[in-house]
Amino acid sequence: MTDPETTSQDTIEQPTLEQLREALDNEDPAAIRELLANIHASEVADLLESLPNQDRQRVWWLIDPDSAGDVLAHAQESVRVSLLELMQPQEVVEATRSLDTDDAADILQDLPEALIESVLLAMDEQNRQRLASVMSYPEDTAGGLMDLDVIPIRADVTLDVVNRFLRRRSEIPDNTDSLVVVDRDNRFLGVLPLTAMFLNDSERTVGECMNTSAEPLPATLPAAEVAKKFEQRDFVSAPVVDEENHLLGRITIDDVVDVIQEEAEQTFRRMAGIEENDLFAPIWSSTRRRAVWLGINIITAFVAAAVIGRFEATIQQLVALAVLMPIVASMGGVAGNQTLTIMVRGLALGQIGKSNIQPLLRKELIISFLNGLLWALVVGVIAYLWFGNHLVSLVIGAAMVITLASGALAGALIPLLLKRIGVDPAIAGGVLLTTVTDVVGFLSFLGLAAIVLALV
Amino acid sequence: MTDPETTSQDTIEQPTLEQLREALDNEDPAAIRELLANIHASEVADLLESLPNQDRQRVWWLIDPDSAGDVLAHAQESVRVSLLELMQPQEVVEATRSLDTDDAADILQDLPEALIESVLLAMDEQNRQRLASVMSYPEDTAGGLMDLDVIPIRADVTLDVVNRFLRRRSEIPDNTDSLVVVDRDNRFLGVLPLTAMFLNDSERTVGECMNTSAEPLPATLPAAEVAKKFEQRDFVSAPVVDEENHLLGRITIDDVVDVIQEEAEQTFRRMAGIEENDLFAPIWSSTRRRAVWLGINIITAFVAAAVIGRFEATIQQLVALAVLMPIVASMGGVAGNQTLTIMVRGLALGQIGKSNIQPLLRKELIISFLNGLLWALVVGVIAYLWFGNHLVSLVIGAAMVITLASGALAGALIPLLLKRIGVDPAIAGGVLLTTVTDVVGFLSFLGLAAIVLALV
Repeated sequence: MTDPETTSQDTIEQPTLEQLREALDNEDPAAIRELLANIHASEVADLLESLPNQDRQRVWWLIDPDSAGDVLAHAQESVRVSLLELMQPQEVVEATRSLDTDDAADILQDLPEALIESVLLAMDEQNRQRLASVMSYPEDTAGGLMDLDVIPIRADVTLDVVNRFLRRRSEIPDNTDSLVVVDRDNRFLGVLPLTAMFLNDSERTVGECMNTSAEPLPATLPAAEVAKKFEQRDFVSAPVVDEENHLLGRITIDDVVDVIQEEAEQTFRRMAGIEENDLFAPIWSSTRRRAVWLGINIITAFVAAAVIGRFEATIQQLVALAVLMPIVASMGGVAGNQTLTIMVRGLALGQIGKSNIQPLLRKELIISFLNGLLWALVVGVIAYLWFGNHLVSLVIGAAMVITLASGALAGALIPLLLKRIGVDPAIAGGVLLTTVTDVVGFLSFLGLAAIVLALV
Repeated sequence: MTDPETTSQDTIEQPTLEQLREALDNEDPAAIRELLANIHASEVADLLESLPNQDRQRVWWLIDPDSAGDVLAHAQESVRVSLLELMQPQEVVEATRSLDTDDAADILQDLPEALIESVLLAMDEQNRQRLASVMSYPEDTAGGLMDLDVIPIRADVTLDVVNRFLRRRSEIPDNTDSLVVVDRDNRFLGVLPLTAMFLNDSERTVGECMNTSAEPLPATLPAAEVAKKFEQRDFVSAPVVDEENHLLGRITIDDVVDVIQEEAEQTFRRMAGIEENDLFAPIWSSTRRRAVWLGINIITAFVAAAVIGRFEATIQQLVALAVLMPIVASMGGVAGNQTLTIMVRGLALGQIGKSNIQPLLRKELIISFLNGLLWALVVGVIAYLWFGNHLVSLVIGAAMVITLASGALAGALIPLLLKRIGVDPAIAGGVLLTTVTDVVGFLSFLGLAAIVLALV
């Protein structure tokens, strides 16, 4: 949260990372193996993500094959892809064997199309069918997130029968907080919380004790919606059904946590034009993606330059204008970006709609007007002290108020317009905003100056 | 996730929001009451957050007192504070009665100091003690997150005894996936998963079946660390202990989900200088907070202006320089900001340390150099076509390469330096970066131009 935590967060990881670094430098595979054996698969994945590409490969060869699947499941997609490239189909089969179906499906989906086939063929029939079922839904839907480790029971049996049925199993899947009640045709009827098994008399039937108000998730529900349901209802697990209410599987909270984190980060990453895993991505792919962003920005920059170009004569007459003009554009950009950031996030969270857009717009305009006045005053005074020209002071002050208000208006309206035409506001919003604030900033400042100079 | 989801996310909420709007406009309290009764408390909280202040109050009066506590627990802090201001101490007591201890403590902590006392006094002894225990830990630690709804059992009893003990209870707290095993002095020994109750013979003892490898969380563990543990280990709940290993309570996944979401958003919000709930915060507090950010930026802007001021004579000689100079600074800013964003996030996630900082720095420099060359070429050609002056083209190209490389270097080093001196890199990083890219951008471009003009 605040700094102390961030710091302590590091102190947990850094020693392991340093030890690993040392073992790599000493070319000491035994030390690396021991280190890896003592930490959780998710931490191994974190470590691999933090390593440069060639070290990552060296460490990967030393991972216990039994935990390779778990490590892959916890790794970021780009890292996973780079590790999968090092593996034979049979190794992938071995690694995914012990995983939940949803995790196995995620890994398989990162393989080249041709390899997916050969991996599926190397599996036994049951696993292949289970995987095919999950993989038939897009990765970012309830169907793609579900695993198949659900325990279905019938409504007409007694709790005692369920108890004996459970005892015959050798294990109960992780995160099982309830059993799912289905009819003869595998249609969803309700859920029986495990705790109900303790609270009720064992002669009562499942049908009497089950919770019928729990609504199952449709397999086609987008992942973002799934996450919202889990957050709002504090689910630990939820059953997934097809269009005809047939039980398909279940989603557990651990998969949803990943979605929630991804959701929250996504907007902001897009606003900076960087990829999910840019920090450890190969140089070439980072360069390419970021170049696109710079290329878009250069259009903005030239539009702004063109505006300045219209006023070459004015600048020639009073060079102080060239000195001060970036201040106006910069302040407008910062103010507009504040509005843009909260609008983009508010839209992503579904907090903004027809009913509240008017008061929000009004609020943003008032804020920017108040801040515009305040900083116009400050900048005006400093400009006067610097250049001793009260006309320049008045002009820059007026330009600041205009530019900050335009920045707020653009920051609020651009995301709404982009959304309406189906473009993600996080991606193009910032560039469009800067275009507006630069153009208005330079135009209002140099334009007002030209008028004033002509009058004097 | 991608656009279609964001859109569908809205279609769920918007109808409710529109209906509410309509009912408010029609001054129809019955319709509002009915609407509120049909949605989950967390959705009521979402609705309240989306309303302007006076509408929020009107709706709040119509909420069923029985669900008021739940709504408060789900609301954002600033909204909660504004609602608490409308309540009498006795109403707060009523509202918090049915809540988990951690949720009740969160609400109480938002009350003015004097009111906390009177609310605590109005409670019965047991609740008061439970609340005081949770409130003795900071809100962002394991102790502050925990609730006290843990079911402790002894190691020497049989599963059958546990079974009968559970049956005597009228309910088992939500998210109970395991019972906590303690010794005579309430010291933590291990956990007994509920599923173990089904899989083992009922004559076996708790001690034989419990999981002793589960580590409890210390009450002082920062919330960010707690979230990390839950994410890595896929916990549903985890016991919390004091320094002497005494069992204090438990943390459940639903509280952790809030922490995870908060964590992920925090960095980026700070980078834009906006508050947690700026979208619906009162105008005055938004204005103040954002003014600070603009005030910091104005220093940056004047430093950049001062650099330009040194070259007034050069600009006078060739006004094209004033037209083109914002391009250099803007491109450097965008490139630097890409590096800054991923470094700040990488640091917050603990992914960056001594062992990998060198390859990361090298990578960022290479990327910025490649992009610098590419865009130097593009800008150089366009500048030549525009002004027909090959010297200006050469100068702007060279300045672009220098500025983009400095931007990457500054984007990578500034967060590291800020962190070392204990300042949150998310807060001050962007402003410092812009100062560097503006100064280097204007200095390299105008400086090179001055030298070239002097030589010609």
